[in-house]
Amino acid sequence: MEKIASMKNQKVKQWKKLQTAKGRKEAGAYLIEGTHLLKEAIKADANILEVVMTEAFHEQSDLQIAEGDIILVSQEILASLAQTETPQGVVAIVQIPEAVPILEYRGKYILLDQVQDPGNVGTIIRTADAAGYAGVILGEGSVDLYNDKVLRSMQGSHFHLPVYRGDLQEMIPEFKKNGIPVYGTELNEAAVDYRTVSPTDAVALVLGNEGNGVSGKILALTDQNLYIPIFGEAESLNVAVAAGILLYHFVG
Amino acid sequence: MEKIASMKNQKVKQWKKLQTAKGRKEAGAYLIEGTHLLKEAIKADANILEVVMTEAFHEQSDLQIAEGDIILVSQEILASLAQTETPQGVVAIVQIPEAVPILEYRGKYILLDQVQDPGNVGTIIRTADAAGYAGVILGEGSVDLYNDKVLRSMQGSHFHLPVYRGDLQEMIPEFKKNGIPVYGTELNEAAVDYRTVSPTDAVALVLGNEGNGVSGKILALTDQNLYIPIFGEAESLNVAVAAGILLYHFVG
Repeated sequence: MEKIASMKNQKVKQWKKLQTAKGRKEAGAYLIEGTHLLKEAIKADANILEVVMTEAFHEQSDLQIAEGDIILVSQEILASLAQTETPQGVVAIVQIPEAVPILEYRGKYILLDQVQDPGNVGTIIRTADAAGYAGVILGEGSVDLYNDKVLRSMQGSHFHLPVYRGDLQEMIPEFKKNGIPVYGTELNEAAVDYRTVSPTDAVALVLGNEGNGVSGKILALTDQNLYIPIFGEAESLNVAVAAGILLYHFVG
Repeated sequence: MEKIASMKNQKVKQWKKLQTAKGRKEAGAYLIEGTHLLKEAIKADANILEVVMTEAFHEQSDLQIAEGDIILVSQEILASLAQTETPQGVVAIVQIPEAVPILEYRGKYILLDQVQDPGNVGTIIRTADAAGYAGVILGEGSVDLYNDKVLRSMQGSHFHLPVYRGDLQEMIPEFKKNGIPVYGTELNEAAVDYRTVSPTDAVALVLGNEGNGVSGKILALTDQNLYIPIFGEAESLNVAVAAGILLYHFVG
């Protein structure tokens, strides 16, 4: 096993660059943290480039990783790579897949229009996975998929279903051309109560930005726009909660 | 208007103590941050003890607050009181209500068994407000209601519906005695698919800890336990998302 003790080691410097979207893009790789995500990556046969752990973690770990693939580092180095307050003692560097599976325009999809909170984006992808959706599309202005907070709330769901990036204005007409109903979400009189719309085998649901909702130019392209009724005094729902309610509504 | 420029000022020290659950308990008060929450507090007629802002914020603010009630502080003091990275420039000290309205055992309630993530607790209370629920009950081991992250994700919903603290093992029999069906949530064979249960006017739904779910001793007390089916490969749903799906299911 290779061992690294110095924070100034060239590899450590390279790994730390993966903490930014720019660094990830340049390296074509991202960092995952903790045993759960690492096990998910192994199960999904992801291309794991390096597994970095402390000696203490290595001694009590039951992970099935060849010794030659492990790099042991000091507590200090691991803490600098991890982004949680009490890291478990392991991080791994995973290659960003070069190609995303072709979008088949079959089944259920969720489209995110400028959803910016990484916890919300990750939670929505996790929910889409749970609800058996075919894929998630991140529109322009949505947060980076490999952001550490997105990864933490996704809990490995990006290994289970494809997550695309694309221009929603170009993709919505494609869904419609393929006979898939496209529903936006908005809180106004023109929208219809989601409970009046029957579940369908295929659907494209658009969720929007935390503060501003789905943008007007996107709402104009959909077949219909839905709202979730508010019965109390809250002004709105959290976008990940709204997504959960709608995703499961369309499951039927 | 009173002005405070020194971080060592006695008031500043007192306010900073409100950043911990212990300090809030001793003072019987909590800190809110930003204009949205302050407006909600004013609208709800909450007992606002002090409003603290920077001079820059005061100059451009349209808040209707008597000059005598405002304390101007330096940017440095405000930043030390605020818990967001880019504070808006205003915080307020609000009294914790001495009495919670009597629990009437009428309508819909949500009960939280050791839900520990403050963002989840706040989001669930916001959703309960949106869905028109009668109240939320925080069981033992749930996070403090006045934690800054709870407050941020609640978005003022604690001003709209009562939030109780109590021993769920004592309260569940009370719900049952009052003819209110009590549903736990769990992911196993003994539970039933939530979609097979019809919405009712009154209900008590129990959601559990992020990692461990609802504890066994609570599940044993309920009328029935429900699960949300998983169609994909995710192991579970985020608890706030699961709450949203169930809360709106019971609205009908």
